[in-house]
Amino acid sequence: MPLNKQQLTLNCDMGESFGAWKMGADDKVIPYIDMANIACGFHASDPHVMHDTIALANQNDVEIGAHPSYPDLQGFGRRSIKMNNDDITNMIIYQVGALQALCRAQYTDIGYVKPHGALYNDMMMNDSVFRAVVKAVALFKVPLMILASQENDKYLEIADDFDVPLLFEAFADRLYQDDGLLTPRGQPNAVLSSEHAILEQVKMLAESGRVKTASGKYILLEADTICVHGDNDDAIALIQSIRRNLYTGGS
Amino acid sequence: MPLNKQQLTLNCDMGESFGAWKMGADDKVIPYIDMANIACGFHASDPHVMHDTIALANQNDVEIGAHPSYPDLQGFGRRSIKMNNDDITNMIIYQVGALQALCRAQYTDIGYVKPHGALYNDMMMNDSVFRAVVKAVALFKVPLMILASQENDKYLEIADDFDVPLLFEAFADRLYQDDGLLTPRGQPNAVLSSEHAILEQVKMLAESGRVKTASGKYILLEADTICVHGDNDDAIALIQSIRRNLYTGGS
Amino acid sequence: MPLNKQQLTLNCDMGESFGAWKMGADDKVIPYIDMANIACGFHASDPHVMHDTIALANQNDVEIGAHPSYPDLQGFGRRSIKMNNDDITNMIIYQVGALQALCRAQYTDIGYVKPHGALYNDMMMNDSVFRAVVKAVALFKVPLMILASQENDKYLEIADDFDVPLLFEAFADRLYQDDGLLTPRGQPNAVLSSEHAILEQVKMLAESGRVKTASGKYILLEADTICVHGDNDDAIALIQSIRRNLYTGGS
Amino acid sequence: MPLNKQQLTLNCDMGESFGAWKMGADDKVIPYIDMANIACGFHASDPHVMHDTIALANQNDVEIGAHPSYPDLQGFGRRSIKMNNDDITNMIIYQVGALQALCRAQYTDIGYVKPHGALYNDMMMNDSVFRAVVKAVALFKVPLMILASQENDKYLEIADDFDVPLLFEAFADRLYQDDGLLTPRGQPNAVLSSEHAILEQVKMLAESGRVKTASGKYILLEADTICVHGDNDDAIALIQSIRRNLYTGGS
Repeated sequence: MPLNKQQLTLNCDMGESFGAWKMGADDKVIPYIDMANIACGFHASDPHVMHDTIALANQNDVEIGAHPSYPDLQGFGRRSIKMNNDDITNMIIYQVGALQALCRAQYTDIGYVKPHGALYNDMMMNDSVFRAVVKAVALFKVPLMILASQENDKYLEIADDFDVPLLFEAFADRLYQDDGLLTPRGQPNAVLSSEHAILEQVKMLAESGRVKTASGKYILLEADTICVHGDNDDAIALIQSIRRNLYTGGS
Repeated sequence: MPLNKQQLTLNCDMGESFGAWKMGADDKVIPYIDMANIACGFHASDPHVMHDTIALANQNDVEIGAHPSYPDLQGFGRRSIKMNNDDITNMIIYQVGALQALCRAQYTDIGYVKPHGALYNDMMMNDSVFRAVVKAVALFKVPLMILASQENDKYLEIADDFDVPLLFEAFADRLYQDDGLLTPRGQPNAVLSSEHAILEQVKMLAESGRVKTASGKYILLEADTICVHGDNDDAIALIQSIRRNLYTGGS
Repeated sequence: MPLNKQQLTLNCDMGESFGAWKMGADDKVIPYIDMANIACGFHASDPHVMHDTIALANQNDVEIGAHPSYPDLQGFGRRSIKMNNDDITNMIIYQVGALQALCRAQYTDIGYVKPHGALYNDMMMNDSVFRAVVKAVALFKVPLMILASQENDKYLEIADDFDVPLLFEAFADRLYQDDGLLTPRGQPNAVLSSEHAILEQVKMLAESGRVKTASGKYILLEADTICVHGDNDDAIALIQSIRRNLYTGGS
Repeated sequence: MPLNKQQLTLNCDMGESFGAWKMGADDKVIPYIDMANIACGFHASDPHVMHDTIALANQNDVEIGAHPSYPDLQGFGRRSIKMNNDDITNMIIYQVGALQALCRAQYTDIGYVKPHGALYNDMMMNDSVFRAVVKAVALFKVPLMILASQENDKYLEIADDFDVPLLFEAFADRLYQDDGLLTPRGQPNAVLSSEHAILEQVKMLAESGRVKTASGKYILLEADTICVHGDNDDAIALIQSIRRNLYTGGS
């Protein structure tokens, strides 16, 4: 996985089924993405689902990232749990180690780590949680994927203490604010609704490392990868459009 | 960990606390044992307990074994769950991988795998379950610990297909039958009650690779290691006696 | 819920979603059924899903049955767990009590209990498990739903010791054997594939309390209710046909 | 259980074992207490432990309270989980209903509800969580036990909307602040260490409904019950002293 910015990659959450419950259309999405964030059994997935998702990633030559979470199947990892930082570090090592072993059983390995849901949010809002996450990721000698923002440098500095490279991700379909943060989901226009606007945002990110904010301003947003979601047929069609757009105009 | 039979080692289940619940006197037992079977979070333990138990093993220079189980905290892994064999393989890889990563975070590694409770029993009673276990262990290139019996050769042959070495364990305090199996726990005399009888059994195992059965017969029982339990002060005193006995008379 | 046989009812598993995972088209199926077997959180469902499913049953004037299971979300309650009988009794009381309280919060109550998956199978194959189930159900003073077979009388006798009425269920789409048991799923023709054959089987059950077996024999099979499944559009269309058939020709 | 203040009762958390893990000396503590707060399986306990703890309460004629929690066995319910209020209501109904059914199986019933750990704290710090708890408790027509403070009236007013009586509990061994809140555990003197000081605090609560605060002030603190803990032999000896003191000087 190249860390240079010349080519934006697409990453997508995968392997979020659990036991008898299916979620996502992983097999339909995977041809159009570069990186699969695979759930590790704490918010979704189980050893069987992990095995199958690794096989799918292998068949499509897609890089595998570990997608660890707070322990919360019922809440799908979306509910913050007040854990102490050492517990967070050990909990992440546990999950990533489990996925890594299942990868090695299929002659592949993890390429990065991206925390999920509430753990991702907590990491971005609390530097001591971020440090706990970085400490866990350092063990695996792979990059950590976090939210691209105006504070990339701050995070790079912390991660550098642990020799952990960072991958910054931007969102194709979320409206940015002037401070580089996402417009909260509760607000109108938080999510870009027109395909045109979404493709424009991706093009701008790829060509100039910028986004147009809610106020109409253009701000720098250095990103390595774009997070996409493949929940339904419309979403998958959109990913295909983004993919096409990135190849023809993006590098 | 030597695989030769000249010196019998002592192995003991460890790290069986869970969250706020404590179990076992790991710190008191560990000075007297050679191998710590560390629970992996499915029948006991959690990432925090695993971390602390690995640290304890490191401090005492004790070898670490992964002790995977069926997913059953409430039943402590003692209840058999009808899983298919692929699920068993993936479930073991998941657990051992998790423990291995937590070991590596402390600059150590797992040295063997010993299944726990109902999974251990099912493995000994069902060759297809045994095969599913061996397949998982093969990934880690460490030995699998199983019950010493008259059928050691059968198991060695299967394990050999996967290049997995075996470690055979005997019990210090269980009465053996003529067929080399343990007298079932329900029966009188299933457990040796006198310290003298226990020490005799260990001495015989160490010096001649034999045990005296319920009927008074002496049978061959090739074992590499002896399973001990450290549940209370009496048990710990017994382990000390066994330890002393092994060093003076055992090799 | 009438216990007389003049009118066969339709029962269907419901509330099998869990957290973010959806399963089944409960809202599409419920207009055509009489009894909703609602999962209690051990193999599927959670307090939120249970609440919503009870509301749905209320809106459609459908009777609510508790659908308790072994504790096994990952295996969807389909894997047998070796529990002792007292544990089974307490585990069922726990689940049914939880559902009953959630019912009462919406001014309704449970009308019967039907064990799920592996627990259902174990209950039919092992009289001591059956007894443990009946003992739990007795507390709630509602009927227990079990598989109709040639041994109805045996089960009635046991249940009578605990003053528990029984509801016998038959399957619309499964081929019966001469002994009244279902042709195992592995075998060809285990499942009736033509709508005509299914409707014939229902008609025969409703009008004469008989089924035609794999060998072409007609045997008595006294049933109060028919189990249907609403997994997809075809299944729902079939339930509608059965429903129509029962009303016009069934009583 | 009288709601008048003439006699302070003692309440204690019970049934906090889980599967093979034991916690607390319930059988030693129970002769000296009036009310047993029984865990409901979400932070501790399981249907078997609940059954046995109910039996113990019955034998000692101790009132049973439901002790529901966030779903967090590993964290023993001490970690706050960001759940929405409807989920909290349904989650409490689920747990209390489960315990109530297990009580009825032994011809007894629950007498009150006291939330556990982080749920208890969140309820006292957030009125909307408090309301979600009261709404759940209303179904069972029993009192809710909460922390006695200077704001008793505010809570009484909210609970009155749902016709839920409140029981206020004070702590025997915690130092109060001038605002009636507990001195946070991190601070020195948060916990009263001398038996004399503890017995004085109980006496003052029982005789005059007052406590002496950290600053030496005397403030009103209306309480119905005192929370005690029976974790070890010293704690149990202390409960005995409090018990004796309450009977001779407390009413």
